[in-house]
Amino acid sequence: MSGNETPEPRWLDDRQQQVWRQWLLAHRELNALISRQLQADGGLSLPDFEVLVALSEAPDRRLRATVLADGMFWERSRLSHQVKRMEARGLVSRIDCEQDRRGAWIGITAEGQAALDKVAPGHVETVRRHLFDRLDEASLEALGRATSAVLDGIDGPEVTYPNTKVS
Amino acid sequence: MSGNETPEPRWLDDRQQQVWRQWLLAHRELNALISRQLQADGGLSLPDFEVLVALSEAPDRRLRATVLADGMFWERSRLSHQVKRMEARGLVSRIDCEQDRRGAWIGITAEGQAALDKVAPGHVETVRRHLFDRLDEASLEALGRATSAVLDGIDGPEVTYPNTKVS
Repeated sequence: MSGNETPEPRWLDDRQQQVWRQWLLAHRELNALISRQLQADGGLSLPDFEVLVALSEAPDRRLRATVLADGMFWERSRLSHQVKRMEARGLVSRIDCEQDRRGAWIGITAEGQAALDKVAPGHVETVRRHLFDRLDEASLEALGRATSAVLDGIDGPEVTYPNTKVS
Repeated sequence: MSGNETPEPRWLDDRQQQVWRQWLLAHRELNALISRQLQADGGLSLPDFEVLVALSEAPDRRLRATVLADGMFWERSRLSHQVKRMEARGLVSRIDCEQDRRGAWIGITAEGQAALDKVAPGHVETVRRHLFDRLDEASLEALGRATSAVLDGIDGPEVTYPNTKVS
């Protein structure tokens, strides 16, 4: 690697390495637990749930597809496929605006809201049991500071992710 | 909701709600940044990268498909599609064992290792710039404790995720 014009990478030290792995694994594990609960309680996937939460919290309970995609950090094509499947199941509805180049609106249906209401109690219980019940006050504050530091300087998307109180 | 036989859900309080959203957004944002870097530096997707890292760290640089899938918390079918695509690009190779019911082995190829080496410096730089450079020593320790608390009591998968030092 020597002799390159680029400087030697600043490799992580052992502790940083360990924390990084824990960060990734903790997130992955939580997602797996949440996915299982959403599927069991309401037949929803995690992406289904994320879309429904974003829509349920939006003004007039609908969002432009572009705004929704950006808020999820998803490619437009991924959102399009996702919405198509959810539309077929009656969870969301799409309103195309031919005269509006900014694209279609996606809205949550009554059925979508019912699905969300059904999984919400189990969802918050999962998040509590595997995260917040395990953190004392100081750890909660520290986690808040650390995650906030990551987000610092980033333009927040218009859509923020999951409110665990869905009512 | 009253009148149900189930107790009222323990909704998150405002601070927990905020930390939870930050946790999710920080992870999503980091993943988006990492994805962009991997794509730009080596034409790899984040799943490509995760598979390559897991294989590169495994004994003999190969893993059973089942073990790899479990380590990623992926469905077997997802891994199968992913591996098929990576095999077509020469990044991994698959060795089927007909007499062994525990399934095929997946190994990293020299080309796969080269792709990993190529993206590694930019990867660690991205992780540093957006996470570790933003945390002081106390926040690092706190993040370590918080993520460790989430993982506590969980059977670790045989495959742990990304070493950011890939050499």
